[in-house]
Amino acid sequence: MDACGATAHTPRTTTSDVLVIGGGVIGLVTAWRAALRGLRVTVADPRPGGGAARVAAGMLAAVTELHHGEEALLDLNLASAGRYPAFAAELAEAAGDPAAGPALIGYRRCGTLAVALDADDRAELRELHLLQQRCGLAAEWLTGRECRRLEPMLAPGVRGGLRVDGDHQADPRLLTDALLRACERAGVAFHRSAARALTLDITGERATGARLEDGTPLTAGQVVLAAGSRSADLAGLPPDLPIPVRPVKGQILRLRMPPANGPGGPFLSRTVRAVVRGGQVYLVPRESGELVIGATSEELGWDTTVTAGGVYQLLRDAHELIPGLTELPLTETRAGLRPGTPDNAPLLGPSGLPGLQLATGHYRNGVLLAPVTGEALAESLTTGELPDWARPFRAQRFGAEVPA
Amino acid sequence: MDACGATAHTPRTTTSDVLVIGGGVIGLVTAWRAALRGLRVTVADPRPGGGAARVAAGMLAAVTELHHGEEALLDLNLASAGRYPAFAAELAEAAGDPAAGPALIGYRRCGTLAVALDADDRAELRELHLLQQRCGLAAEWLTGRECRRLEPMLAPGVRGGLRVDGDHQADPRLLTDALLRACERAGVAFHRSAARALTLDITGERATGARLEDGTPLTAGQVVLAAGSRSADLAGLPPDLPIPVRPVKGQILRLRMPPANGPGGPFLSRTVRAVVRGGQVYLVPRESGELVIGATSEELGWDTTVTAGGVYQLLRDAHELIPGLTELPLTETRAGLRPGTPDNAPLLGPSGLPGLQLATGHYRNGVLLAPVTGEALAESLTTGELPDWARPFRAQRFGAEVPA
Repeated sequence: MDACGATAHTPRTTTSDVLVIGGGVIGLVTAWRAALRGLRVTVADPRPGGGAARVAAGMLAAVTELHHGEEALLDLNLASAGRYPAFAAELAEAAGDPAAGPALIGYRRCGTLAVALDADDRAELRELHLLQQRCGLAAEWLTGRECRRLEPMLAPGVRGGLRVDGDHQADPRLLTDALLRACERAGVAFHRSAARALTLDITGERATGARLEDGTPLTAGQVVLAAGSRSADLAGLPPDLPIPVRPVKGQILRLRMPPANGPGGPFLSRTVRAVVRGGQVYLVPRESGELVIGATSEELGWDTTVTAGGVYQLLRDAHELIPGLTELPLTETRAGLRPGTPDNAPLLGPSGLPGLQLATGHYRNGVLLAPVTGEALAESLTTGELPDWARPFRAQRFGAEVPA
Repeated sequence: MDACGATAHTPRTTTSDVLVIGGGVIGLVTAWRAALRGLRVTVADPRPGGGAARVAAGMLAAVTELHHGEEALLDLNLASAGRYPAFAAELAEAAGDPAAGPALIGYRRCGTLAVALDADDRAELRELHLLQQRCGLAAEWLTGRECRRLEPMLAPGVRGGLRVDGDHQADPRLLTDALLRACERAGVAFHRSAARALTLDITGERATGARLEDGTPLTAGQVVLAAGSRSADLAGLPPDLPIPVRPVKGQILRLRMPPANGPGGPFLSRTVRAVVRGGQVYLVPRESGELVIGATSEELGWDTTVTAGGVYQLLRDAHELIPGLTELPLTETRAGLRPGTPDNAPLLGPSGLPGLQLATGHYRNGVLLAPVTGEALAESLTTGELPDWARPFRAQRFGAEVPA
């Protein structure tokens, strides 16, 4: 692990209780939590910690990302958001830096302001507010003037907004770094193999590990498929075991804000988001001075190209919201792949093939759902069953009836 | 020279006929041409070949960049554009690759199309056309339909344009690489010192070299100051010898076009430029598939930050001109500093301080003016006088009367 200085274990053959295929946030949290239950865990990934979380903004946006028909997902999102402070503190300790506390992963209780720029946006935001109220969620309607009092950089044209004090943020890069350290300290082994280079081993109708291209087996009592948008790609999966995960490309920008203690005060003090011309744009300001602007949503297969149009759309929409950002340095442009599912909710636990469990399909919520995913998988790996609260997201809920 | 494999000479002390301070396109072409005249030349630069040319688009735009009151500069620009084919061929030979010919530096006789998007733009372009005609330059007025027949990717809204078949392009990165090789093969020595770390040595009212921070002298019969936008920064310059050069920041983008032999034909087949809302935007398509989009023009001192606003402006204006570029990968964002002067023309030859000559202040035309600059400086270094055709650009033309 170049990034965090941990030691890579790359044995020629491996026998573990659990082989986790995929070392992104979801694979790592699963590995860490399973190791804490006393299981011997191996993670297979060509570059652990290098998945979609390297790109993601890290909004913990259970309330502002609420959609009609996704009330079950709301419960899971809220549960995970509620666990975040304790999760972050425990992770800091497990990573060897308890004094850092939740700040180790950039966990910041800054709240979110969702604003509207025109009458259509305002109607849409009002609709969201009604849905939030029906679900018993805390969100306060503000006039444009009140929005600008909270965030003076907002465009004069902002017509109103929703103040959601419960939607916070974490820094996904810090989170993956901390998870890598926690895994290493918990004795998790790493095998630098891509899911694409692996073939699932099935012996007597049970998954028993995976095999490298040269035939080397990674034998395991159980296998967890946590390869994000690449999950359906694993060779050797039985054809009658569909894994309905597809890549949804997101392009994202990183800018640098002036120091928060400068003469003008902080550039932004909370996450600001809006619907602009039907597209989502959000600005996530970190304590470090980084400002993340996201994200496009494109269904183009495995393509992760940063395009002129993607960057243009994000800058145009963000500029409409916060005109003053034109002066900020643009430090990074990047694209990643969200693992989308037919109902936008994750696939957790037993897959239908004995010995194979899933922890994938987290779509826009991988960072938010890390705490509950680790917990749910640790439980199903040790008992064979998901905890009750995770059952709505069982991997087998689509049966064989999923869209191709 | 990491980039081209040449050997760096970094002696502890140096005595040369000519010390060139600055290893950008202008410093290198001066060094090469002086070495060809039999002079022993040393170039001082922390990273030879790393100046503004690493950023520049490389338009050779004598005709489309014509401005009222700059007719003298036009003559110099046209003279240099006319020398380009022979210069490029000679440089390819000097760089050790005669078979490559002018293509070695990406010299491409593709012509330029300057278009108008609205009535104001059209009026401005008509004005330019009149001026071009008065100066006897070849430029043909086209309707919007004729423009789109030449370049089918142009926006439907294009109202007309000027076809200028004599404005070509070179690739400034290939040009600097070739100049580095040519210098090395001609015996030029390199000293990796920044102009900022040097102090001009003056002995008996004559420049006699420069001195490193640790006191090491780089002794020379003559010194050429070719440090681009940093030229006025050299320590030890006499206070009554003003060098009226200021940095003018330009931000620029690089995109990648689909293969020119693909089903749709070339994305663009010539340089396309326009005035959009008063700002210049140009798109320079290279044979390699690179598409360069430039450029902002900002007076912000030495700042070379790529900003959200700069990138946004370029993408917005380019998108208005060529809507189809949204699909293209955005591969690079960069900013450089043009060395601006009070009359937008270069400062060439004797400086007023015996032993010190200037080759700086090329503003937007450093790549275009490389051939004539090398020739003019080689002449003034060997004879003490600029050739007649270069006299309008003599370094002393502002006297001490220049703006601070």
